[in-house]
Amino acid sequence: MTARHDIRRLTRFAASLFERSGMPADRARTVARLLIDADMMGHDTHGLNLAPQYLAALAAGEMPATGEPKRLSDTGPVVLWDGQYLSGVWLVDAAMDLALGRAREFGMCAVGIRRSGHIACLQSFLTKATDQGFLVLLLSSDPAAKGVAPPGATEAIYTPNPIAVGIPTDADPVLIDISCSITTMGLAGRKKAEAARLPGAWLVDADGKPTDDPAAGVALLPLGGTDSGHKGFGLGLMVEAMTSALGGFGRKDGPGQHGASVTLLLFDPDAFGGRQDFLAETSFLASACRAANVPEGSAEVRIPGARGLAAHREALANGVTLYPGIMERLEEWATRLGVDRPQPLN
Amino acid sequence: MTARHDIRRLTRFAASLFERSGMPADRARTVARLLIDADMMGHDTHGLNLAPQYLAALAAGEMPATGEPKRLSDTGPVVLWDGQYLSGVWLVDAAMDLALGRAREFGMCAVGIRRSGHIACLQSFLTKATDQGFLVLLLSSDPAAKGVAPPGATEAIYTPNPIAVGIPTDADPVLIDISCSITTMGLAGRKKAEAARLPGAWLVDADGKPTDDPAAGVALLPLGGTDSGHKGFGLGLMVEAMTSALGGFGRKDGPGQHGASVTLLLFDPDAFGGRQDFLAETSFLASACRAANVPEGSAEVRIPGARGLAAHREALANGVTLYPGIMERLEEWATRLGVDRPQPLN
Repeated sequence: MTARHDIRRLTRFAASLFERSGMPADRARTVARLLIDADMMGHDTHGLNLAPQYLAALAAGEMPATGEPKRLSDTGPVVLWDGQYLSGVWLVDAAMDLALGRAREFGMCAVGIRRSGHIACLQSFLTKATDQGFLVLLLSSDPAAKGVAPPGATEAIYTPNPIAVGIPTDADPVLIDISCSITTMGLAGRKKAEAARLPGAWLVDADGKPTDDPAAGVALLPLGGTDSGHKGFGLGLMVEAMTSALGGFGRKDGPGQHGASVTLLLFDPDAFGGRQDFLAETSFLASACRAANVPEGSAEVRIPGARGLAAHREALANGVTLYPGIMERLEEWATRLGVDRPQPLN
Repeated sequence: MTARHDIRRLTRFAASLFERSGMPADRARTVARLLIDADMMGHDTHGLNLAPQYLAALAAGEMPATGEPKRLSDTGPVVLWDGQYLSGVWLVDAAMDLALGRAREFGMCAVGIRRSGHIACLQSFLTKATDQGFLVLLLSSDPAAKGVAPPGATEAIYTPNPIAVGIPTDADPVLIDISCSITTMGLAGRKKAEAARLPGAWLVDADGKPTDDPAAGVALLPLGGTDSGHKGFGLGLMVEAMTSALGGFGRKDGPGQHGASVTLLLFDPDAFGGRQDFLAETSFLASACRAANVPEGSAEVRIPGARGLAAHREALANGVTLYPGIMERLEEWATRLGVDRPQPLN
């Protein structure tokens, strides 16, 4: 069995790695905490699994350890930053703090970040907003990458473009984190490395045929696949426009470095129909979904985020089990940076 | 061959029907124009096809012919109206006028409408914003209706929840108009009436199995179907939260009357990274999609809205051909209301 790690101890360990790599202590702690939140929610590809590549980028100077985003625009409810390829995890969390104040003041706000570093697990950022009663949307694209083909094309043109949404209710928030492609570039890559097939014909091959074979596929299909891929395509274009185009930096600039175009939208229900009616409505709908008829013997409808929040609570109480290989790779960095490895719980 | 109608003449005819039903002249003209825009773009179910039901609702007093929306909230960038079940087509167009001013002032804005009348073709409203260089989103749900089952359920809980997006470019705008379900309630209903099958297994039956038989289906599947329906479900919940929940009126209120919960979002690129870079980026991406490799002999990738805009131009020049049956139903209303029928072009 793989070791369980106490959350505080593991966070101090990861924060030390980032701090020894030159990050200010608070920033290092924020990045460590948000990555570990992803592991705790079960998103083990987007948690500490990313730390070695972040540490390598810090060591290579590709991700500056210090410095601030540059404010390019500020109308009050709209702010745009140039992220200078600083840690995207830290930038999005800082943008959220800014956005919470602006949404309270104006009723809604948008904070854009162009040239952000990689932002890891979008779902991790949402609870800071939902805990304070705000409806939050977080959108992202990477103008230096391509993975998804428009319907009918045999070539990747744009990225999967995730949309994360946090919806407060009277109980747990609804936490949505999806992409506008039918699957992720990560899954397709992993299956290709394993010479395995995908669960469905989610790729397009060079002849324009759908295929489940990652070796034959040239691009991901949009969400909706061959049936209704025009819908996923439309959503993908929406995210590109709301992130790279609004930010004024994107594919037209031919960026040589991976990075994220990010847009964060916050809505204060008190500026619309009021917090009480908002929560009553979101709670009513979540309950209606959970109470919906299901076939005999099936589990009830799962609300987005419910499983992750339950896993997060369990990990907070009993520690988190990291996906095999992650701690080993971090231990190499710990040795190099002179950081003590954390003692596991078992 | 069905008759072609001159756009001006047809618009005056439809406007007269609404005006004789009690609507102020300007309002009647707006509703007529936007419905005919839908027909011109090829959305023949959401154009004048709806006029008889609107005229019946006006006659029955279910859609008040006069009156104004009630302003429930106004923070500057956020406005919420109670639409009083007035014509949704007129309300959304009026909300767009308000939103254009607010987006110019604040850089972005949201206008919500609860208890709106039916809003017809979402795509029709977008060009007013894109013509002035704004990025626009229009979202809608109907808290008195149900048609879509959450993944795993055998019961409809929420509506298809359309998302329309208008993205300005240097040439034609990108005009997206999709729902978060795999197909529409309209298509499923039409196929059921014809005792025909759907093009795919887009419904769920009482046993939880996907089916293409509208007689056996109990609800629509979310966008993504059996493969990735959790994504369509997440998007559907997002739209419910951004419309009914923010508006403070929804399913929890058990409304006895059909109506729309609407949210309109406008973004001024000049408040973000600037109009020039915005247009350069959206134009670059649209060109890249059109230039993408396609299989030998296939048509180039179609940009959302391109076909509708071309059809609209053609109809403006040569008149519009209405879907069979529409003019016949309108002529009954013309007789009843004492309006002259328009002379066709051929």
